[in-house]
Amino acid sequence: MEPVSETSGGYVQSLARGLLVIRAFNESNPEMTLSEVARATDMSRAAARRFLHTLVHLGYVWTDGRVFALTPRVLELGFAYLSSISLPEIAQPYLERLVAEVHESASVSVLDGTDIVYVARVPTSRIMTVSINIGTRFPAYATSMGRVILADLPDEHLDEHLAQVELQPLGPHTITTPAELKRELARVGEQGWALVDQELEAGLRSIAAPIRDRSDRVVAAVNISSHASRTSVEDARTRLLPPLLETAARIGADLAVSPNPRAGALPR
Amino acid sequence: MEPVSETSGGYVQSLARGLLVIRAFNESNPEMTLSEVARATDMSRAAARRFLHTLVHLGYVWTDGRVFALTPRVLELGFAYLSSISLPEIAQPYLERLVAEVHESASVSVLDGTDIVYVARVPTSRIMTVSINIGTRFPAYATSMGRVILADLPDEHLDEHLAQVELQPLGPHTITTPAELKRELARVGEQGWALVDQELEAGLRSIAAPIRDRSDRVVAAVNISSHASRTSVEDARTRLLPPLLETAARIGADLAVSPNPRAGALPR
Repeated sequence: MEPVSETSGGYVQSLARGLLVIRAFNESNPEMTLSEVARATDMSRAAARRFLHTLVHLGYVWTDGRVFALTPRVLELGFAYLSSISLPEIAQPYLERLVAEVHESASVSVLDGTDIVYVARVPTSRIMTVSINIGTRFPAYATSMGRVILADLPDEHLDEHLAQVELQPLGPHTITTPAELKRELARVGEQGWALVDQELEAGLRSIAAPIRDRSDRVVAAVNISSHASRTSVEDARTRLLPPLLETAARIGADLAVSPNPRAGALPR
Repeated sequence: MEPVSETSGGYVQSLARGLLVIRAFNESNPEMTLSEVARATDMSRAAARRFLHTLVHLGYVWTDGRVFALTPRVLELGFAYLSSISLPEIAQPYLERLVAEVHESASVSVLDGTDIVYVARVPTSRIMTVSINIGTRFPAYATSMGRVILADLPDEHLDEHLAQVELQPLGPHTITTPAELKRELARVGEQGWALVDQELEAGLRSIAAPIRDRSDRVVAAVNISSHASRTSVEDARTRLLPPLLETAARIGADLAVSPNPRAGALPR
């Protein structure tokens, strides 16, 4: 890597590559040697060494001289985003009250590209095969929270969105054609909530309501998820929907008077 | 900024400065103009522009051409750390069961420098004035989880640790002398758990147990926190401690057989 190319065209290649080094660590590779990092990031050993040593110096990476690993300080980077939006802080107590009432897990998500991203969550017992944390992503089209957010997109933005995703049968009942999805989104927009029945994963039912900002745009969504064996579709509508709609309205009302205008969603 | 200085001495200045730009965004500054970012990071406008545009290109920052804001993609960086350790995934279902039994919030933390950092949490209702999320930090010395981790440090490491912190009266009963803290840590190490009564914040009682890896070293801690008006010291000992110790033992046993050896704590 030449110093000149690092900054060519106003693009800071070193920053891009440094972030790539952080993201090279994961469940399969929690600890890596210099050679392994170089291979995972497609860099020379000399380049990988410089990035790793910089991250060690900054406290984001730990090393015993042989292997390298991320430190908990890396969480502060994600925390920078969470603390920059007022939504998680506002939503958390409402989620706690909702979960205390319905005894099912509740979450708040925002849209990022074609995914929803969890920004607040109060879990009860595990019902999905994967664990959900702040930062977990799912394709918006197959989730109840994604549907209420997509339902508010202007037509041209929705078409743009649909052009970017491949609708895949993630669960036994997933909607997989754009035409059917658009019909469902129109219905969701009209009724003001979405119920997704085993479209993301077999056995998972989820119901979501939109969170609106002061200009009445949908900026996020709140949901309750339950196991299909515990909650029928009818039960979700009669027992879960009323407190869910109330929770969404309260979070939206608090957001509207928040001194921090950023809910979490980016203007479209 | 000269290209040459960016890479001088094997230290990648551009990476350090780019991470500084990410961390410049926070609750008080969720959206910033170019000039504001330059001021917050002590960079020239030209340099700040290059970093911001690189982050926009990578999808970590959004702009409308005037102001800049972080995107939810930033959470993926923190997620890289969480997915690189097996502890949160292993601990989560045990925390959920514990919370269902005792009806109080439970959490798991690791030590990073002189702080504990939350890596898993199941909240019930809010009892602290600040909200706690994954990534939240508190000074180890004033927390029950910090105490059980510190109690396992070899003497010389503990002295090093104490030399780095200033013991401050964060709550009405905070231990603020190194000698008293060392006596308490010796007691904690012997009894195998720690109770902290309003040392971190008035009204907050917390009880913690150590999580041990396969070599019997304390690598993390699990706690239950409650409001002082709801849980007496005696109540914490008789009602909360037995299920807490069992939870810590089960998480440790699962960690010991985990294919991923990294619990979250870094070797000392």
